[in-house]
Amino acid sequence: RQFDQFSLTRETLRVSEDEVEDAYKTVDSEIIKDLKSAADRIESYHQKQLPYLSEASGGNEKLKEVIRPLQRVGIYVPGGKAAYPSSVLMNALPARVAGVNEIVMVSPRVSDHVLAAAKIAGVNYIYRVGGAQAVGALAYGTESINRVDKIVGPGNIYVETAKRLLFGVVGLDMVAGPSEVLIVADDSAVPSFAASDFIAQAEHDEDAFPLLITTSESFLQEVEQEIQLQVDTAERKSIIQKSITNNGLLILAKNLDKAVELTNRVAPEHLVLMVSNGHDLLDSITNAGAVFVGNYSPVAVGDYMAGPSHVLPTAGTSRFFSPLGVYDFLKRMSVIHFSKDELEKLQPAVSRLARLEGLDAHAKAIELRLTSND
Amino acid sequence: RQFDQFSLTRETLRVSEDEVEDAYKTVDSEIIKDLKSAADRIESYHQKQLPYLSEASGGNEKLKEVIRPLQRVGIYVPGGKAAYPSSVLMNALPARVAGVNEIVMVSPRVSDHVLAAAKIAGVNYIYRVGGAQAVGALAYGTESINRVDKIVGPGNIYVETAKRLLFGVVGLDMVAGPSEVLIVADDSAVPSFAASDFIAQAEHDEDAFPLLITTSESFLQEVEQEIQLQVDTAERKSIIQKSITNNGLLILAKNLDKAVELTNRVAPEHLVLMVSNGHDLLDSITNAGAVFVGNYSPVAVGDYMAGPSHVLPTAGTSRFFSPLGVYDFLKRMSVIHFSKDELEKLQPAVSRLARLEGLDAHAKAIELRLTSND
Repeated sequence: RQFDQFSLTRETLRVSEDEVEDAYKTVDSEIIKDLKSAADRIESYHQKQLPYLSEASGGNEKLKEVIRPLQRVGIYVPGGKAAYPSSVLMNALPARVAGVNEIVMVSPRVSDHVLAAAKIAGVNYIYRVGGAQAVGALAYGTESINRVDKIVGPGNIYVETAKRLLFGVVGLDMVAGPSEVLIVADDSAVPSFAASDFIAQAEHDEDAFPLLITTSESFLQEVEQEIQLQVDTAERKSIIQKSITNNGLLILAKNLDKAVELTNRVAPEHLVLMVSNGHDLLDSITNAGAVFVGNYSPVAVGDYMAGPSHVLPTAGTSRFFSPLGVYDFLKRMSVIHFSKDELEKLQPAVSRLARLEGLDAHAKAIELRLTSND
Repeated sequence: RQFDQFSLTRETLRVSEDEVEDAYKTVDSEIIKDLKSAADRIESYHQKQLPYLSEASGGNEKLKEVIRPLQRVGIYVPGGKAAYPSSVLMNALPARVAGVNEIVMVSPRVSDHVLAAAKIAGVNYIYRVGGAQAVGALAYGTESINRVDKIVGPGNIYVETAKRLLFGVVGLDMVAGPSEVLIVADDSAVPSFAASDFIAQAEHDEDAFPLLITTSESFLQEVEQEIQLQVDTAERKSIIQKSITNNGLLILAKNLDKAVELTNRVAPEHLVLMVSNGHDLLDSITNAGAVFVGNYSPVAVGDYMAGPSHVLPTAGTSRFFSPLGVYDFLKRMSVIHFSKDELEKLQPAVSRLARLEGLDAHAKAIELRLTSND
C-alpha cells in the first residue's frame, strides 16, 4: 500500500479472464500480430528441443528413463521500470511446449500488452503481485495462490534473493543479475553496428554491462567515436551514459586467442561474434548464454523474435546455467526392473559392497529374494 | 581440530596420487572387481544419456543449440557415519561421461575404499575436507582448492544448507534430505520382500522414511509381522527401530487410484511398485526419483549396481528435480545467425515491440544495419 499506492483485495489479486479479454481487445492489432509472430517463432524453436528429450529412454527394458512435464510452474514477469510482453512469451512458451499443466504468472504491472501476451502464450492464471512476496507465495502457496513446482523468469534484486533463499523448496531456473553483452570484434566488424549493440545493452538500466573486445586498435578508436555519436541522439541517453560510466569497457586484446580466453572467463549473457570466422571461433567458446554470429545478428533480434528464449544466464553463471528451455520444464525418473535371474547375477557384488558400507539390511533385501520360494 | 581431532596442513589437505595408489593396492581384489563392475554398469547406463543430448541442435543453420560439458565440478562424498565408495561412483561417473575436464572430490573421510573408487571413476583431485567449509571452498575457491562450476552429491544438513545459500554463485544438483522409500503393493507382492526394502531404507539413519501403501488389508498385516521378524535379526536394529518409530508408515488405501494420488503427492525418492501391473501403473506416476518395478527389483540393487545414479531427489523435490545424470554436467548455448535479408524480414515487428517496451536503442540497432551501406 505504502509503496505501490494501491490496495489489493482477494478479488482484485487475480486478473480475471474477462479482464484479459478486455486488455487483448484494446491492444493495437499490429502489435497483436507482432506478438503472435514472435510467439510462433519462439514456439517452433522450442519444439525442436522436444524430440531429443522424448528419446531419452536409457537403453534396454530393465533400465530406462521416463520424462514428465512439471505440473505447475510460476512465471515472474518484472514490471518495475517498464512492462515486458516479450518476457511473457519467452518464459511461458517453453513451459507450454514442454506440456506443463498450469502456468501461473505473477507481475507487479499487468499492462494490456502483458495480458495480451499472456493470452497468446497460454498462461492459465495471472496475479497482480510482484517482489519477494510473489516468490514466497508461489513457493509455499497461500489461500489464493497455489504452490508451484518451479519459478522461472528474472526479477530485481529482491525477487532474485527470495528465489535464491528458496532453492530446493521450489525449483528455479537460475539467479539473474543485470544484463550484459560482450562483443568480440576484428577488422571485419562494422564499427557503427558494434556501437549500436553496445548502446542497446547500456539502455536496459544503469547496472547493465556493455563490453567489447577487439584485436584492432583502429577499430577500437572508430567504435569509441561511434558510441559517442549514437549516445548523443539516444532517447535513453542518461541511462546509457550511467551504465557506460559504471560498467562499460572497450578492451584491446593482443590476439583472438586472448579474446577467447577472456570471453570464457567473463562467461557473458550475450556474446556477439563480429569476426570473419565467427563459426570457427564458436568452437572455442565454452561459456556464454546466447551467441550472436556476424554483422547482421544484433542482440535485439534475439530479444524479441529470433526464437531462443531471451531468459539467459548472467553474471558469469553461463559457466553452469543454460538458456531457459523446454528442458527446464521437464524432469526425469529412472526406472529399474529386474527379473530374479538378473538379480541373481548381481547379488554377490551388491552384498559385498553393501556390507562394506555397513548396510547389512541392504544385502539381506537381495539375498532373501533369492532364497525365497516365492 | 576440536571436533575431528586432527590438524590439516596444506600438504595433507590434498590426497596425493601416491596415497591413492597405495590405498588402491590395500583394497581386497574382489572389492576392486565389484567396484569396477558397478562402474561399468553406471558408465554404460549414462552413456545412453549422451546421444540425445548431442543431437540437440535446434534446427536450421540460423538457430541452433550447442552443448558444452562443465569445465570443473566438485563432488561431495559424505563420510560422517560411514565411508561410501558407491557414492563416489554414482557422482563422478555421470560427470566423466559428460566430458567434464576436472572432477574435484571433497570428503571428510577418505577411506581406502573411497580412494579406490575415486581412482576407478577417474576423479582428478581429492581433498580431505567436509562440511559447510568444503562447500564454501569449492564455490569460491581458496589458496589450495580451485573454484568449481557446480557442486553435486548429498551431504548432511550443514552441507546442504551451505549449498542452498550458494545457489547461483555455483551450480547445484539439488538439495538433499533424509532418504525415503515408498512401496506400493497389492496382493501380488511378497510380504517378506516388501518388508526387506522397508527395513533396508530404515537402516540408513534415524531420519530415514520407510513408507508403504497397500490396497490389501491382509497384506498390511502380513507385512507388519514380517517387519517385526526381520527387525529382530537386523544388525542395525536400533537405528531401524528409531527410523520406523520416527517416520515409518503402513498405509491402507481404498484402491490403486488413491495410492497413486498419494504417491504423486509424496513424490518419493525411491518408489517400489510391487503390483501386478507395474508398468501400466508407471504411466500414472508423475513424481518420483527412481522407480523399482516388480518383486525382484529391490532398492539395494539400484543403490550399488543397476546403473542409474543413486543420487536422487528427496523430500518431495522429485516434483521438480531429476536423478543426477549426464545432463547435470552439460550446459547449452543458443546460437543465432542472421543474414541481412533475414534480419530485414523481422525488422518491423522487432522495432515495434522494442519501442513498446521503451527500448529505442534496441530498435535502432536493427534499423541502422538495414540503412547502412556496409
